[in-house]
Amino acid sequence: MKTTEDFNMVNAYIPGRATLEPGTEAMIGRRNALLGPAYRLMYEHPLHIVRGEGAWLIDPQGRRYLDAYNNVTSLGHCHPTVTEAICRQVRTLATNTRYLHDSILELAERLLASVPGTDLAHLMLTCTGSEANDLAYRIAQVRTGGTGVIVTDTAYHGITDAVSKFSPSLGASVDLGAHVRMVPAPRQYHAGGADLSERFTRDVEAAIADLKRHGIRPAALIVDSVFTSDGILPNAPGFLKGAVEAMQRAGGVFIADEVQPGFGRTGEHLWGFQRHGVRPDIVTMGKPMGNGQPIAGLLATADVLAEFGRNSRYFNTFAGNTVSCAAALAVLDAIEQERLVANAAAVGRVLYDGIAALARRHEAIGDVRGVGLFVGVELVSDRHARTPNRALTSLVVNKMREKGVLLSACATGHNVLKIRPPLVLSAQQAAMVIAALDESLSEAR
Amino acid sequence: MKTTEDFNMVNAYIPGRATLEPGTEAMIGRRNALLGPAYRLMYEHPLHIVRGEGAWLIDPQGRRYLDAYNNVTSLGHCHPTVTEAICRQVRTLATNTRYLHDSILELAERLLASVPGTDLAHLMLTCTGSEANDLAYRIAQVRTGGTGVIVTDTAYHGITDAVSKFSPSLGASVDLGAHVRMVPAPRQYHAGGADLSERFTRDVEAAIADLKRHGIRPAALIVDSVFTSDGILPNAPGFLKGAVEAMQRAGGVFIADEVQPGFGRTGEHLWGFQRHGVRPDIVTMGKPMGNGQPIAGLLATADVLAEFGRNSRYFNTFAGNTVSCAAALAVLDAIEQERLVANAAAVGRVLYDGIAALARRHEAIGDVRGVGLFVGVELVSDRHARTPNRALTSLVVNKMREKGVLLSACATGHNVLKIRPPLVLSAQQAAMVIAALDESLSEAR
Repeated sequence: MKTTEDFNMVNAYIPGRATLEPGTEAMIGRRNALLGPAYRLMYEHPLHIVRGEGAWLIDPQGRRYLDAYNNVTSLGHCHPTVTEAICRQVRTLATNTRYLHDSILELAERLLASVPGTDLAHLMLTCTGSEANDLAYRIAQVRTGGTGVIVTDTAYHGITDAVSKFSPSLGASVDLGAHVRMVPAPRQYHAGGADLSERFTRDVEAAIADLKRHGIRPAALIVDSVFTSDGILPNAPGFLKGAVEAMQRAGGVFIADEVQPGFGRTGEHLWGFQRHGVRPDIVTMGKPMGNGQPIAGLLATADVLAEFGRNSRYFNTFAGNTVSCAAALAVLDAIEQERLVANAAAVGRVLYDGIAALARRHEAIGDVRGVGLFVGVELVSDRHARTPNRALTSLVVNKMREKGVLLSACATGHNVLKIRPPLVLSAQQAAMVIAALDESLSEAR
Repeated sequence: MKTTEDFNMVNAYIPGRATLEPGTEAMIGRRNALLGPAYRLMYEHPLHIVRGEGAWLIDPQGRRYLDAYNNVTSLGHCHPTVTEAICRQVRTLATNTRYLHDSILELAERLLASVPGTDLAHLMLTCTGSEANDLAYRIAQVRTGGTGVIVTDTAYHGITDAVSKFSPSLGASVDLGAHVRMVPAPRQYHAGGADLSERFTRDVEAAIADLKRHGIRPAALIVDSVFTSDGILPNAPGFLKGAVEAMQRAGGVFIADEVQPGFGRTGEHLWGFQRHGVRPDIVTMGKPMGNGQPIAGLLATADVLAEFGRNSRYFNTFAGNTVSCAAALAVLDAIEQERLVANAAAVGRVLYDGIAALARRHEAIGDVRGVGLFVGVELVSDRHARTPNRALTSLVVNKMREKGVLLSACATGHNVLKIRPPLVLSAQQAAMVIAALDESLSEAR
């Protein structure tokens, strides 16, 4: 029988572990035959989903699951502002950036207006976050003449050939590039009170020195400011400043990977890097950008893009098409009109406080951390030693799924609950997450 | 002033070359400021397009242009079968492959049923053709333990970091990888009657030997069977067989890049490789797959995918989402219901014959070649010497745009008209293309 390690993914469905309904079993068999061995499902009992509505996902029997995990549909599933913008545009025109069209320009203006105090000057569009990070890396290489990349030790930045080489969270069987250096993610909970900002800066400086020692010129430091796959580590505002400036001083660029924290999830600004007072050379974005429509992209400074633009034309057939731009504009509209950044802050606070209160009754909760509607709950078998409890984490994730609340896990130890609901979550729905977590932890004791 | 070379793209708009209307000029200025230096527009007078309908693109003044170039909207712009499938699905559910859903399975079954006589067994989905070729290359590397890639000398396979390294048509300022070898594209018109199939096989064998001589294990031969960016070179059926088998004998995989010829364009089968009787290890697809919706992917044999699936999980957030699958299923429906492969053959024949007839009156037409609704017209300044006439080609492309027919150019010499209308083109519309070409060539004399 295959083990969890074979599936190298937190919360992956492992065939044979649980007894499934015959219908589900058959559907999974058909899927394995058709899609092959690289695809994964989530949960011990995988979900068949047929409908989405607000924060809810619905199965064929009409059972509703509260989606506290999907960070694409940040406005909730099937948000009418976005679906109607898509339907209107798809019936009018769906074509590419080799013709002039207004919507891409409006989108660029609005996104560039969201990053005051930076030198970011241009928008380039892709279809996926992986493509955005891949393009950012291409630009960084041309800008610096180098190839060296520095990432955190459980970072995930995407799945292209180049980007998978600097995405250690894909697992040990996906090789890192010889030009890639990992630095420890800033795990405050495990730092014994040390100043992690200073340590992180020193680690990045050491990685830069090590790249140079091997004849590799540093091209980029790329960081998700919430360190999502490292275990959701928001850290103190300003924390990233030293490391970013060290890379920029060394001639490399700083890429803020906003695919996860972007578009208001942190409840403070539209972008995660803004809480750290840093000046990125490139900002990449994706997932929630079109609330499900495949659109992603990057903002870059004129300086960093100049030589790339001279050497390379850039055309991505579907990227910047009129439908995707319409969806992205509708997302920005909804975020503003429904004050979703403020909602992320307010409901995120309810969620955080509720879980922090649970920690008083549940010994297994070692740490609760969060920013906006992004909360990590680290489960341990020994509070004093802070020993990761992966088995319990998996049990809790699956119990919550049985209770109708969807979330998942992350971090090197696979022991951090990853709670990342849509930004439209209500306080009442946050209370449901807290109650389900309370019950699950009690039952799992 | 910048030159055409600075823009390293056939038919790129070059600022300052022509006097534009103030409105267009201002829009281009705004676009350059917002999107930066890597984006390109087409035509001497770029087009502002606001609406699409069947084979037509429409500007803000209501002027209609016959689109004989866009190979994404193969069913015509805003085809109702597709737009209604998108609207229905986007209002119901737009989520990912970590849940079970029927539509991706149905899509896999239908695509796998379209490749009888091969060992292709699995479908994997991406959002763009670049991602599909990037994933194919990742799979080929894991399968072979090698990195070596062989492509034709003006090939285009995409724009990720890895794929741009084997896309020589991006221009001399985008470096090819040290692990990449180019073979001459099979230009029958310039071959002096030689058997190009044999020569192509020998060239691929020599490239394999050269890779090995440099200690580089061959991973893949990747070929667009219509050699689109090489100048549209359909060649004789069976032509590719020797080269493909040479690569497979050497332990490498054959990737049929069907992003351009796929989905019926050749008017013979659904896929271009099928005319050559070869057995690809991987088939990549994209552009027309969703008639504008960003969806692409690959079919692979179980054998080639086995080790990749063991080592790597594969998740592409937007790829295989329910909306993109609905669009792709609608595309397959429309191709069948409207018998578009047969239409591509019939109208392609009208188009080809009409242009071949023009060659009797226009000395500049050196060669006409085509398969289905994909026609290349090579323009020369000297029929005997077959000298490429790039300036005339550019003039004709722009004259046709002024007359309301959109096409572009390709090939190393930038002297091949690239005519690639939607598969729904009518014989009457084909006649319009021919008449406009006749007039443009007469005026350009």
